[in-house]
Amino acid sequence: MKHFITLFFCFGLSVACYSQPKQQQTSLHYPYRPVPFTQVKVNDGLWLDKIKKNSEITIPISLYQSLITGRIQHFYQAAHPSDTIKPQGKYYDDSDVFKIIEGIGYSLQTFPNSKLENYTDSIIDLIEAAQEADGYLYTFRTMNPKHPTSKTVGTERWKNVERGSHELYNQGHLIEGAIAYYQATGKDKLLKVAIKSADCICRAIGPGENQLKIVPGHEELELALCKLYLVTGDKKYLDEALFFIDMRGKTEVKSEYTQSDKPLLEQTTAIGHAVRAMYLYCGAVDVAALTNNREYIEAIDRIWDDLVRHQLYLTGGIGSSRKGEAFGLPYNLINKEAYNETCASIGLVFLNQRLFQLHGDAKYIDVLERTLYNALLAGVSLTGDHFFYPNPLASDGGYLRSPWFGTACCPSNICRFMPSLPGYIYAVNGRDLYVNMFLPNNASLDINGKKVELAQQTKYPWEGDILLEVKKNQAGIFAMKIRIPGWALGQVVPSQLYSFSDNQKPQYAITVNNQPVQSSIDKGYFTIERKWRTGDKINIHFDIPVRSIVANEKLKEDNGLVAFQRGPIVYCAESIDNPDFNNFLLPYTPEWDIRYDATKLDGITELITTAQQFNYDQQGFITTSKRSLTLIPYYSWSNRGDSKMAVWLPWKVEKVITKDK
Amino acid sequence: MKHFITLFFCFGLSVACYSQPKQQQTSLHYPYRPVPFTQVKVNDGLWLDKIKKNSEITIPISLYQSLITGRIQHFYQAAHPSDTIKPQGKYYDDSDVFKIIEGIGYSLQTFPNSKLENYTDSIIDLIEAAQEADGYLYTFRTMNPKHPTSKTVGTERWKNVERGSHELYNQGHLIEGAIAYYQATGKDKLLKVAIKSADCICRAIGPGENQLKIVPGHEELELALCKLYLVTGDKKYLDEALFFIDMRGKTEVKSEYTQSDKPLLEQTTAIGHAVRAMYLYCGAVDVAALTNNREYIEAIDRIWDDLVRHQLYLTGGIGSSRKGEAFGLPYNLINKEAYNETCASIGLVFLNQRLFQLHGDAKYIDVLERTLYNALLAGVSLTGDHFFYPNPLASDGGYLRSPWFGTACCPSNICRFMPSLPGYIYAVNGRDLYVNMFLPNNASLDINGKKVELAQQTKYPWEGDILLEVKKNQAGIFAMKIRIPGWALGQVVPSQLYSFSDNQKPQYAITVNNQPVQSSIDKGYFTIERKWRTGDKINIHFDIPVRSIVANEKLKEDNGLVAFQRGPIVYCAESIDNPDFNNFLLPYTPEWDIRYDATKLDGITELITTAQQFNYDQQGFITTSKRSLTLIPYYSWSNRGDSKMAVWLPWKVEKVITKDK
Repeated sequence: MKHFITLFFCFGLSVACYSQPKQQQTSLHYPYRPVPFTQVKVNDGLWLDKIKKNSEITIPISLYQSLITGRIQHFYQAAHPSDTIKPQGKYYDDSDVFKIIEGIGYSLQTFPNSKLENYTDSIIDLIEAAQEADGYLYTFRTMNPKHPTSKTVGTERWKNVERGSHELYNQGHLIEGAIAYYQATGKDKLLKVAIKSADCICRAIGPGENQLKIVPGHEELELALCKLYLVTGDKKYLDEALFFIDMRGKTEVKSEYTQSDKPLLEQTTAIGHAVRAMYLYCGAVDVAALTNNREYIEAIDRIWDDLVRHQLYLTGGIGSSRKGEAFGLPYNLINKEAYNETCASIGLVFLNQRLFQLHGDAKYIDVLERTLYNALLAGVSLTGDHFFYPNPLASDGGYLRSPWFGTACCPSNICRFMPSLPGYIYAVNGRDLYVNMFLPNNASLDINGKKVELAQQTKYPWEGDILLEVKKNQAGIFAMKIRIPGWALGQVVPSQLYSFSDNQKPQYAITVNNQPVQSSIDKGYFTIERKWRTGDKINIHFDIPVRSIVANEKLKEDNGLVAFQRGPIVYCAESIDNPDFNNFLLPYTPEWDIRYDATKLDGITELITTAQQFNYDQQGFITTSKRSLTLIPYYSWSNRGDSKMAVWLPWKVEKVITKDK
Repeated sequence: MKHFITLFFCFGLSVACYSQPKQQQTSLHYPYRPVPFTQVKVNDGLWLDKIKKNSEITIPISLYQSLITGRIQHFYQAAHPSDTIKPQGKYYDDSDVFKIIEGIGYSLQTFPNSKLENYTDSIIDLIEAAQEADGYLYTFRTMNPKHPTSKTVGTERWKNVERGSHELYNQGHLIEGAIAYYQATGKDKLLKVAIKSADCICRAIGPGENQLKIVPGHEELELALCKLYLVTGDKKYLDEALFFIDMRGKTEVKSEYTQSDKPLLEQTTAIGHAVRAMYLYCGAVDVAALTNNREYIEAIDRIWDDLVRHQLYLTGGIGSSRKGEAFGLPYNLINKEAYNETCASIGLVFLNQRLFQLHGDAKYIDVLERTLYNALLAGVSLTGDHFFYPNPLASDGGYLRSPWFGTACCPSNICRFMPSLPGYIYAVNGRDLYVNMFLPNNASLDINGKKVELAQQTKYPWEGDILLEVKKNQAGIFAMKIRIPGWALGQVVPSQLYSFSDNQKPQYAITVNNQPVQSSIDKGYFTIERKWRTGDKINIHFDIPVRSIVANEKLKEDNGLVAFQRGPIVYCAESIDNPDFNNFLLPYTPEWDIRYDATKLDGITELITTAQQFNYDQQGFITTSKRSLTLIPYYSWSNRGDSKMAVWLPWKVEKVITKDK
């Protein structure tokens, strides 16, 4: 057996505000700037539960898995290279550790934990020790430079970047992890490591004469470099990101799978590996926004339009094809075999948040919210310790979440996404304050450099009432822009892919200090501009009836089927609640009994109606009888053992689910 | 800030069977020898779920907590001592790591995990490095010998053992952890460390002229030394254990709290700190059994009789008093304030298993099973990641399990106990095979050196049918001794503390190959002696009606109250199922609707009946109405958020629970 040593340095808490290089104030930034996670405290409800579970279970379990699978040990091995080492695991394992650290950064904001923070510092010491003198950081090469562990890693630095070495992918996650941890704790050790790594990349790869002309085989670094530019003010990182976006499709390896079959400006459809695609588009929006590049903005807008018209599942999942974890043919949104990788959902949330930051349009938040409450939330068990990689919309049973994966991108992405949610709730543009997400929180933010404090109370997504209270306002007159969700305005998604089939017209109403206020809806926002005073109360009410949804007829898979949504929550039938799962048929206008049950599935609103059961008499004539049908939120399925499940339910006789053989 | 370094050695897998010193075959052993955990595979049901949860959650979380709280780092610090180190945490923290390793050993048997095993090996390397040259192992002193961290630790080795330094307590857990890990994996590195530590203790403390005359302030080492004797065959460890038992109450520090107010032979009641008491009595039974010392056997029998007559809660919990985590006055078994430490339940299981091994009487297994399914199982949440330290029998709300404790004995005890259960199912004495526990498993055991294979199938504790099948028998004629639980023979506990108040007479019946068999009941066992053949099937049936239980009138707390048990499961009412929790009254003969629900609380049988609700009309006259009352297993309470709970329920008007203020 091989001998190895794992060393944990932990040189205490080097608390130092990052100040090198000097922050350059650039005028370039996203027009709509999110209020950062450090200024918003989630304090109740479903998301506090999720962030708590992430803190108590998902992060500890992910650290444990990183320890026993050698992911953390690899950094020690890289700090003590030897030609006898043959690393185990995957060459992209470094990225999981960086993502967990990113998650810890966000998580400490909601659940401070000095012990976890100290322990994380010791991991960061180890990462620092693994970095080569010139900034190169990639444990799979460094631990044994003479003995590359696989063809994919290759024998030389950067040589296999476009063929899958993930060298640049890992660095992207390093940067994101370092920034989150710095913003959360003020500690800059990992940020310095990330900057040194980014500088090493900027020297090796770029437009210069002696520089390599390559782009990442798995995108991620582009968006991370833009973040690093915003944190440091150093334009070289933005330039490097722009280089990667510009060069895409113009370098040696050309493939649809990695969105490099042609230059991005010539691309018109969401294509290839879905996670790579999302990260690339995010990087492109970042670069376009920060350089005000209209061409790239138009390219991404085109691709987004294609995506929501042809590729978006009702749950907000994307990437239908198991072959290559990729986008499939337009409208080919199969249910049982849907891939819908959890990471792709997270990537789609990132993309829509960026497009909102660029355009200030609520339609992006509509898609974001759909993905968030459905495809993404389904990616982790209610217990926080089991994960879905694919997220199908139907199951015949036998499909369960796993405790971990050899390729653990999804668990580590859940680790970092869940506690980042406070950063998605509000945004500011000039004197406009955007209220995008509805969940209980306190926020302290700046409008034109003046302090504003807000409190939000709500039982959303289970109830449609939200109370926003101004706790402090030093900014005088400003506009509160309240997002009216698409489903409250008659649109399932911003395309013809799905539509409401019922005749219900949900209403919404907004009052300020109990006085009704009116506003036209602009880009999905209801605007109230006034001089806000401490104690001002905005009551927002949305009707949230159960809505019946049918799919575009081109989406053959769902013909004759119906699905149900209430507020942002997409529902499903699971065999646990409906033991006789087959041979049922929904009436055209089901009447719903809507029940909140605090003890079921960590607290859900379930929907109960009467359906019809089909059978055959002795002579083979069809017989029908009434039966009760219970629907639960899609995200909560597969938390009570093995089960069958379906989001799209039979509504017309020809689509009756046939009996099991 | 302090600087520290945590080093993980992991010198691979040193698989070597332990063989030094040479195993001496001694004739002395327990007469009734349990079939060890390595020969029994639990393969279904509630306990497989629990062992799986322990493997997937409790062990990982406990390792995570040990890492972030410095428990593992302490071993590195002890390997690199410095006079600048001021250790954090508690001087008994070492023991938690040893207990987790013990749990990992058992757990690997049911859920092999080479990654976890490799990682555990790296922790063991660290422990080895922390041991001083002469075998002394106590990180809180070794890491900085010149600067004792507290008065309790003291300035000199062993000096404060009787006053609470836990130096010997830690070594006990080291030995137990080392033996379990050795038996599970065949790796002896930690066992060698434990032997070196034990040898160091045997040199320093004992009856010789230059040896210290002290006993452990927190008992545990006594039973561990007996285990070490059984594994190594080296009688010096048994002699050292006997020294500690003999000297108890004869050394400097005398205190009821540590069972050292007088010599053990003069003690007649369970007294003092409950966990210490259990571990002491275990050590005393071990020594008595292994040396055939009648006096000690009689002393412990006396104390056990006292315990079951005066100190045993209906749930099998012990140690009523919060003051000193201790036994209280006889019959003073308060419900809401009951301490009932989880560790004390585990200790009581250990004690009863040993008394069975000594006497071959099923009454000990009756108490063991009561503790196991009720007080002990309540100590960990269904999710495996939250723990009770005290386990009260009633709550007004506000009492929830915690993710960890500064003093983490209970979580680490849960870690090691849960996966050890396979070792409690069967035992052998000569040509008698004892079937003590009912749960699905396959076993491969020896009777007089000949191989016997058994399979057990059952849905116990929810149903009363058990199928035992002989899969192989090379032992010819032997007696199958099947435990008939006390509750099936009319006795709640082996004393007058509780009794059944109903008129039900549960029946049991046993067939072999579908032919009824008869036997008298001897010490609680039904005996079938025959030449067993492959394929022989024993069907055991117990009626398991819901039984009403009342307490001895001396147990004032429970006067006028009633409790319910079905099979080994004690039930409780929780406010989650019974929102209007107060003002209800059970009828004298409730009729029960018994419902197994696979989706509720990880699968439970709940009991539903009609009770009466009390209220007052406008003039203050009492009014009554009927209401439904749902009971759940006691162990499953407090898994759905904050709640009120009661095991003992009002049955007579004077005990009606009054309305909340």
